[in-house]
Amino acid sequence: MPNPVRALTALALAAVLPLAASADPLPSWNEGEAKSRILAFVAAVTDPASEQYLPPEARIATFDNDGALWAEQPLYFQLVFALDRVRAQAGAHPEWKDDPTFAAVLGDDPKALESLHLEDVIKLVAASHAGMTDAEFAASAEAWLGDAKHPRFGVPYASLVYQPTLELLSFLRDSGFQTWICSGGGIDFVRAFAEETYGIPPEQVIGSGIAKEFRFESGAASFARLPKLLEPVNDKEGKPVWIRRQIGRRPALAFGNSDGDLAMLRYATSGTGTSLGILLHHDDAEREWAYDRESHVGRLSEGLDVAKDSGWLLVSMKDDFARVFPAH
Amino acid sequence: MPNPVRALTALALAAVLPLAASADPLPSWNEGEAKSRILAFVAAVTDPASEQYLPPEARIATFDNDGALWAEQPLYFQLVFALDRVRAQAGAHPEWKDDPTFAAVLGDDPKALESLHLEDVIKLVAASHAGMTDAEFAASAEAWLGDAKHPRFGVPYASLVYQPTLELLSFLRDSGFQTWICSGGGIDFVRAFAEETYGIPPEQVIGSGIAKEFRFESGAASFARLPKLLEPVNDKEGKPVWIRRQIGRRPALAFGNSDGDLAMLRYATSGTGTSLGILLHHDDAEREWAYDRESHVGRLSEGLDVAKDSGWLLVSMKDDFARVFPAH
Repeated sequence: MPNPVRALTALALAAVLPLAASADPLPSWNEGEAKSRILAFVAAVTDPASEQYLPPEARIATFDNDGALWAEQPLYFQLVFALDRVRAQAGAHPEWKDDPTFAAVLGDDPKALESLHLEDVIKLVAASHAGMTDAEFAASAEAWLGDAKHPRFGVPYASLVYQPTLELLSFLRDSGFQTWICSGGGIDFVRAFAEETYGIPPEQVIGSGIAKEFRFESGAASFARLPKLLEPVNDKEGKPVWIRRQIGRRPALAFGNSDGDLAMLRYATSGTGTSLGILLHHDDAEREWAYDRESHVGRLSEGLDVAKDSGWLLVSMKDDFARVFPAH
Repeated sequence: MPNPVRALTALALAAVLPLAASADPLPSWNEGEAKSRILAFVAAVTDPASEQYLPPEARIATFDNDGALWAEQPLYFQLVFALDRVRAQAGAHPEWKDDPTFAAVLGDDPKALESLHLEDVIKLVAASHAGMTDAEFAASAEAWLGDAKHPRFGVPYASLVYQPTLELLSFLRDSGFQTWICSGGGIDFVRAFAEETYGIPPEQVIGSGIAKEFRFESGAASFARLPKLLEPVNDKEGKPVWIRRQIGRRPALAFGNSDGDLAMLRYATSGTGTSLGILLHHDDAEREWAYDRESHVGRLSEGLDVAKDSGWLLVSMKDDFARVFPAH
């Protein structure tokens, strides 16, 4: 018969002791260098006896979103959302026909769409995401995320998250890390699904943004979304700037997949404390996509050249991911 | 003789059970309406059986800094710091003599200084806080905070924090709140002391700021501080805008002391959930200062007119604070 006092003790201790390390925290990662380095990094920074130990407040991890936490092909998902909105609003904007960026969207020519660059994306986002309140924008993003289906996989876009990076987020949080998103995408678009999809609360989302104006009318507060981009855009050298603004500390781990993430990885891995830079290489055409140096979306070229000399971990989706997407 | 198993059980339970509510969490507040309303608010939002219950993620509190968490007379402390820097750098800027704002500083005419407005403050801050890296700025702010003494009290400026609001911060955190600073002052200046002084980490500081550029040279990362203000300034209607950017949720409690905080209080208290807006009235010339409608620093005029109808708590420093500053 169990001793009730001992049972209570065990129960109480279980609540305060760290989780036993018996279960594999990264079951969707194949055994290999990538998984080993991640496990070794987390073991070292959480071991008070290690020279690489980091106190909890220094355990900051920043993750890119597009191509790092969820897929980004054949077009950035937020761009698909923006295109849907532009098409819906085109009737009210006859002048859009004379602008090559908008014409590419409204003409529905796949080649023209493929030629869009980040600057075009930003223009479309600013035009299609402004002129409403934050609450209206959030509602439209949530509705789109619930309805729209990915053309290749036929599932909602938020289903195309990577099971291995979901596990990495959980593992890091269980190891005392704050997990932040640092996305080139719009902060409010990412917030529309980040908490439910990644377990990341709004205050740990960093992204590009547009100017807003606070309005208080008849006792109701709202934010008007203005068609003006906040500078810098949260891409390339803009990422460390917004990390500095919103976090105020250097990350110890940075996870990206494109040249737009290099400045973030350089920032994270150039300090004196233990750090880890990770780049995910999309080399799996069968289960996802294979693209790098020539891709308009998520181009990874300089990153492939400098990863090794920078000491960064280059993760191969093909070799290191035992599974790509969660079971649907 | 103590039973070791029972002792261990007690110890383990003490670690997981909430602190017993026997101790007064606000010992430096006099008994009265202010203290009662704060205690009742926290009791209601943390009681799952209450209709006013707020889940932990909704327990966001935002505090102004100048005049709310620390004193702001006879000049905003960051302005004193900026003036010291402007004087030190004046030799390299002969053109400053022809600018009325800078001339007011360099001439050391107390009347001219008193006439400075927020726009002047911002100009001085932008000019005196730029042209260096973030690391250099942080070092100079920390050095000044360690050395400079307040003219009336003869203590370091960071000693002039309010004991009652320190207790309120701790009480809110013990009750599951995130406590954020939302200051009209500069984000990096406030971060230089917020963690040590208030227990508030850098990622929970919102403030005004200047533009920055990320630099990566010879393997070293740095942020160059540019002489350009970020818009909006984190004052008045700018406060909700930056709260929305950095937190992404509406605060349930907002604490301020001047008309610059009204938009923040309106935002916090106009939602559907339980909320509390608090304004601290500086009416204690003996222990601190008495100022409101006519003050150049921390003016509180419209706030006095609308507090009651808005349902906000107006705290009297004279009547509600049993002690103003911590024992030094």
